Amino acid sequence: MTPTACLLIIGNEILSGRTQDANIRFLATGLGEIGIALDEVRVIPDRAPRIISAVSECRARFDHVFTTGGIGPTHDDITAACVAEAIGVPLEIHEESFRALEDYLGKEKFNAARQRMAMLPRGATPIANSVSVAPGFTIANVHVMAGVPRIMQAMFNALKPSLKGGAPLTSVAWYSDLREGTLAEGLAEIQAHFPDLDLGSYSFERDDGRRGVTLVAKGYDTELVAEAGKQIRALILALGAEPVSGEPAP
Amino acid sequence: MTPTACLLIIGNEILSGRTQDANIRFLATGLGEIGIALDEVRVIPDRAPRIISAVSECRARFDHVFTTGGIGPTHDDITAACVAEAIGVPLEIHEESFRALEDYLGKEKFNAARQRMAMLPRGATPIANSVSVAPGFTIANVHVMAGVPRIMQAMFNALKPSLKGGAPLTSVAWYSDLREGTLAEGLAEIQAHFPDLDLGSYSFERDDGRRGVTLVAKGYDTELVAEAGKQIRALILALGAEPVSGEPAP
Repeated sequence: MTPTACLLIIGNEILSGRTQDANIRFLATGLGEIGIALDEVRVIPDRAPRIISAVSECRARFDHVFTTGGIGPTHDDITAACVAEAIGVPLEIHEESFRALEDYLGKEKFNAARQRMAMLPRGATPIANSVSVAPGFTIANVHVMAGVPRIMQAMFNALKPSLKGGAPLTSVAWYSDLREGTLAEGLAEIQAHFPDLDLGSYSFERDDGRRGVTLVAKGYDTELVAEAGKQIRALILALGAEPVSGEPAP
Repeated sequence: MTPTACLLIIGNEILSGRTQDANIRFLATGLGEIGIALDEVRVIPDRAPRIISAVSECRARFDHVFTTGGIGPTHDDITAACVAEAIGVPLEIHEESFRALEDYLGKEKFNAARQRMAMLPRGATPIANSVSVAPGFTIANVHVMAGVPRIMQAMFNALKPSLKGGAPLTSVAWYSDLREGTLAEGLAEIQAHFPDLDLGSYSFERDDGRRGVTLVAKGYDTELVAEAGKQIRALILALGAEPVSGEPAP
């Protein structure tokens, strides 16, 4: 079975519309590559009861929980404390991280606010941060990362080798100028043949007037995906259009 | 009290990393303008049990639930049926929408797959779709919209006048070259004075080397927001830096 994951984005700035999310797609793609299925995403506010209940609920339902956001030095950076509470362990100074931050920032700048970034739940394993030293961490099946995309990406890449997934997600795509309503019946038949694959249809419309639909088959079994791809191609041909491999250029 | 909203994004294509989300920020901003607080977002797969349980849970917890995705003509377009089931009403042909689609597409193209787009839960009010005619709908506190951003935006704009919110979300921002760890203590004090506002700090780093932090105060009370803005400006001055109004250019 492919392990499942849930991403919790902790951030008022996404919910207020201030910031465009840039983490979902990166994590979705990265997890697919190592054979872990991103199965849900939640964006929740920086409020302790919401974070604690979401972590508790999601870590029971999914094999992995990834969080982004709320691990900096300011008053709204409460993710580490909330995860500690959800797991039921104390939050304490992580000596190695404390010394690394003190070395990096210098004693004078390493004030009380910044020292909070060295507080981890007891028993957590730090996730290295090659950008700004303040670590993320893994405890049980919860992986806590920064919200700033560049730092989040560095942390995920540091974490990746320790994550055990299944076969990677593979996909095949064909597009044509046929519309969804014309393809729907045949596509439903192909889906019925391949219950373990995810068959999707995506309309496109380009500025130069090109319109049509891309049909995509995705799954964790390469042979099944290839077979579905052949049937998709045959469907487009049978409906009198020209199938083109891949996705249309933007 | 400001009404709350939850957005359910129904779409395997976001969870697989195929598609970059473009709906969260638009809806967050649009709801803020009419005084409804987007309080949670969930991205879930195109699977009936997941959609039904998310709709049921979220419509009990939030004043409004908005969904995007899954209302086209193909096999994975199951949102209307799932919402009908969550609310406990049958799904049936909506005569007016049926005739409008038949007129728009022509009898020949209006096949069984496309006729599904005229099936709404009993008692639903259609949401006009100025782009491709197939409607969204509102039933109880659930608003069902398309996933394609251009169509979703047209539907939200059609829906907006019927949504009753409170005072709009307002915000004030000041930035400087100070860092989060330096600002954290003073910012926490300001937050403590304004428990009803959301005070955030956002690091920026530009390609030309400019670095610093933007401090933002947000809330539904314009006077409180303005007062918090004055205190933010004073904090930056007291720490020896130059406060600049607004957000730094990209």
